[in-house]
Amino acid sequence: MSENKVIETDILIIGAGPTGLFTVFEAGLLKLRCHLIDYLPQPGGQLTEIYPKKPIYDIPGFPDVLAGDLIDNLMKQIEPFNPGFTLGERAEEIERLEDGRFKLTSHKGTVHIAPVIAIAGGLGCFAPRKPPISNIADFEDRGIEYIIREPEFYRDKKVVIAGGGDSALDWTIYLADVAKELTLVHRRKGFRGALDSVEKVEQLAEAGRIKLLTESQVVGLKGEEQLQGVEIKQKGADNYWLETEHFVPLFGLSPKLGPIGEWGLNINRSAVEVDTFDYSTNVPGIFAIGDINTYPGKLKLILCGFHEATLMVQSAFKIIHPEKKVQFKYTTVNGVNGF
Amino acid sequence: MSENKVIETDILIIGAGPTGLFTVFEAGLLKLRCHLIDYLPQPGGQLTEIYPKKPIYDIPGFPDVLAGDLIDNLMKQIEPFNPGFTLGERAEEIERLEDGRFKLTSHKGTVHIAPVIAIAGGLGCFAPRKPPISNIADFEDRGIEYIIREPEFYRDKKVVIAGGGDSALDWTIYLADVAKELTLVHRRKGFRGALDSVEKVEQLAEAGRIKLLTESQVVGLKGEEQLQGVEIKQKGADNYWLETEHFVPLFGLSPKLGPIGEWGLNINRSAVEVDTFDYSTNVPGIFAIGDINTYPGKLKLILCGFHEATLMVQSAFKIIHPEKKVQFKYTTVNGVNGF
Ligand SMILES: Cc1cc2nc3c(=O)[nH]c(=O)nc-3n(C[C@H](O)[C@H](O)[C@H](O)COP(=O)(O)OP(=O)(O)OC[C@H]3O[C@@H](n4cnc5c(N)ncnc54)[C@H](O)[C@@H]3O)c2cc1C
Ligand SMILES: Cc1cc2nc3c(=O)[nH]c(=O)nc-3n(C[C@H](O)[C@H](O)[C@H](O)COP(=O)(O)OP(=O)(O)OC[C@H]3O[C@@H](n4cnc5c(N)ncnc54)[C@H](O)[C@@H]3O)c2cc1C
Repeated sequence: MSENKVIETDILIIGAGPTGLFTVFEAGLLKLRCHLIDYLPQPGGQLTEIYPKKPIYDIPGFPDVLAGDLIDNLMKQIEPFNPGFTLGERAEEIERLEDGRFKLTSHKGTVHIAPVIAIAGGLGCFAPRKPPISNIADFEDRGIEYIIREPEFYRDKKVVIAGGGDSALDWTIYLADVAKELTLVHRRKGFRGALDSVEKVEQLAEAGRIKLLTESQVVGLKGEEQLQGVEIKQKGADNYWLETEHFVPLFGLSPKLGPIGEWGLNINRSAVEVDTFDYSTNVPGIFAIGDINTYPGKLKLILCGFHEATLMVQSAFKIIHPEKKVQFKYTTVNGVNGF
Repeated sequence: MSENKVIETDILIIGAGPTGLFTVFEAGLLKLRCHLIDYLPQPGGQLTEIYPKKPIYDIPGFPDVLAGDLIDNLMKQIEPFNPGFTLGERAEEIERLEDGRFKLTSHKGTVHIAPVIAIAGGLGCFAPRKPPISNIADFEDRGIEYIIREPEFYRDKKVVIAGGGDSALDWTIYLADVAKELTLVHRRKGFRGALDSVEKVEQLAEAGRIKLLTESQVVGLKGEEQLQGVEIKQKGADNYWLETEHFVPLFGLSPKLGPIGEWGLNINRSAVEVDTFDYSTNVPGIFAIGDINTYPGKLKLILCGFHEATLMVQSAFKIIHPEKKVQFKYTTVNGVNGF
């Protein structure tokens, strides 16, 4: 058994989206330390993962701000409070210790211990949408990848990409120069992606640098240990097998509540029910803030997560320091005193 | 009787502080029009009136922002929705019309009509703190002013200023060049204001350009029609009369809930009780948001007012358009479509 480092903190925050990040700031004002765990490799939640270059117009005080810039600003704002991060790991199991604190173990076995847990998990973990092929799990990481992490991995390989959105188009264009043979398979005739990407892909196909199969689907997989071929079903034609070393279905990421659903919390339509007094859940010591919670009148907006985080840390303080009184002071008057 | 213009709108907002201003934005996204009324001559509430040049550190996404700049940003953010303003007037009387809408009359008689009222009145109207002199009301606007609006008004006049804070010091320095004779009266020996202002005032006194009376108070007023003299009580000396045309007590502004307290709303320690579902008051159609409201867990913070405004306009929409459904769309996806 490998020995894992144990991380101890005051508030363990699950999810490093805007809500989780701002929690660090409000907790810090009360001299509470925070640690964040996120399944994604970088902080920012939906803003960094889905729309970093899009402007948001309803953040108060910003007539407009790029989602990525908002996250950069929040990272700068919480810097004085020096939060810890466990990135690329999913919060998996939770357990209450005898001393009343929680022990949270990630899917990689990292252990976190804290008296308060703030679930700021947004829509949950982003999981790839998979094509419905019965034996697909057999080839995962043996020729099937749902995310392209390192394009050089595909150098001089035979690759089949499937999908009709920007991600499929962009990687097709990119890998045309990298792969030995590249095929793009798409179920429909038209693509959903940006027009100039569609044109580029069509030019690559005309020039014979990629193979473009529209109105087609991958319906079967074969291979021993490693993937060796995919079965293509094309409209008005007989199915046939195409030799390939890699099959990369890029059908987008769909969020899943995942393990959070198994922690004994009251769940309502994939969201955690909370009391708006302090956004506490039915389990004392566990709070839920931001997109992941639900209450009458809930709106899934960034600015609402900020408010929820701010009220939440007041109750967190009382759990962590039952003997002390929260000192409420304006930042304008008191400044920001980091750790 | 003078005929007053009647202002009609969807949401009439009392108070143009940060909460009232951001309400215009969130209402605008739902295609609701707003009009704001504020007793102060400019928008921005406490931020513009009390601390425009101080940095705030807890506005999400701003590691720091000057209070005045935050208000400028909010004004820019709401520009597309073209709100109306009634400035320098106090919301005084409220009445429900037969058609269910509210009629709100200002202390100057301006009439506003709207189906929804959002009270974003902060700590209430700022009223000057007055010295306890029995006949002071007789001389108001007849030689006694509590706010210096136009320094030229005092050119070549005999003026007595009272107070020990920045406002008293700064105006003494300024009016030393304007008034014919200037006296600064302060109850204590030391001043509360900025050190360099205190030094400047002491230098002016030494140079004989102003008269400085510390450990002194104005305790009486005399005059026919207009103020002619103030009675000075100095520690360890007999009272005496000082001839003057103006007496300007600058003892600061203190907020008063004022007329809002008389509208049949449930009031709890000078704040309006609301339901956190939508920040509605006990009077259907009247909401209270920002510093002026209270509920379990309430924090008087700017970012909380933003959240409250956002949830509130959802219910306002249902009152204004009972037959329609609110369309919830992200600004990133839908943009901002003004009027
Ligand atoms: C295209 C688009 C446009 C949008 N436009 C706007 C807009 O204009 N204005 C606005 O206010 N909102 C907008 N939103 C919504 C906004 O992005 C969300 O409200 C916001 O991201 C919620 O923040 P959060 O921190 O609560 O959650 P998220 O940003 O979803 O972050 C949650 C994080 O938790 C992590 N996580 C979840 N479960 C686990 C687990 N078990 N272990 C480890 N990590 C986990 C996830 O990986 C994720 O990083 C938009 C959303 C989209 C998709
Ligand atoms: C020195 C200082 C430092 C602060 N620092 C911070 C900080 O760092 N962070 C933070 O979040 N908050 C801070 N605050 C608090 C913050 O300023 C308030 O939370 C904020 O101003 C509330 O906004 P509001 O719009 O609800 O009310 P206000 O800003 O008070 O605005 C209310 C407006 O309503 C008007 N009004 C009231 N009654 C009537 C009437 N009957 N008719 C017409 N007009 C009326 C008033 O004239 C006023 O302009 C600070 C406050 C002060 C004084």
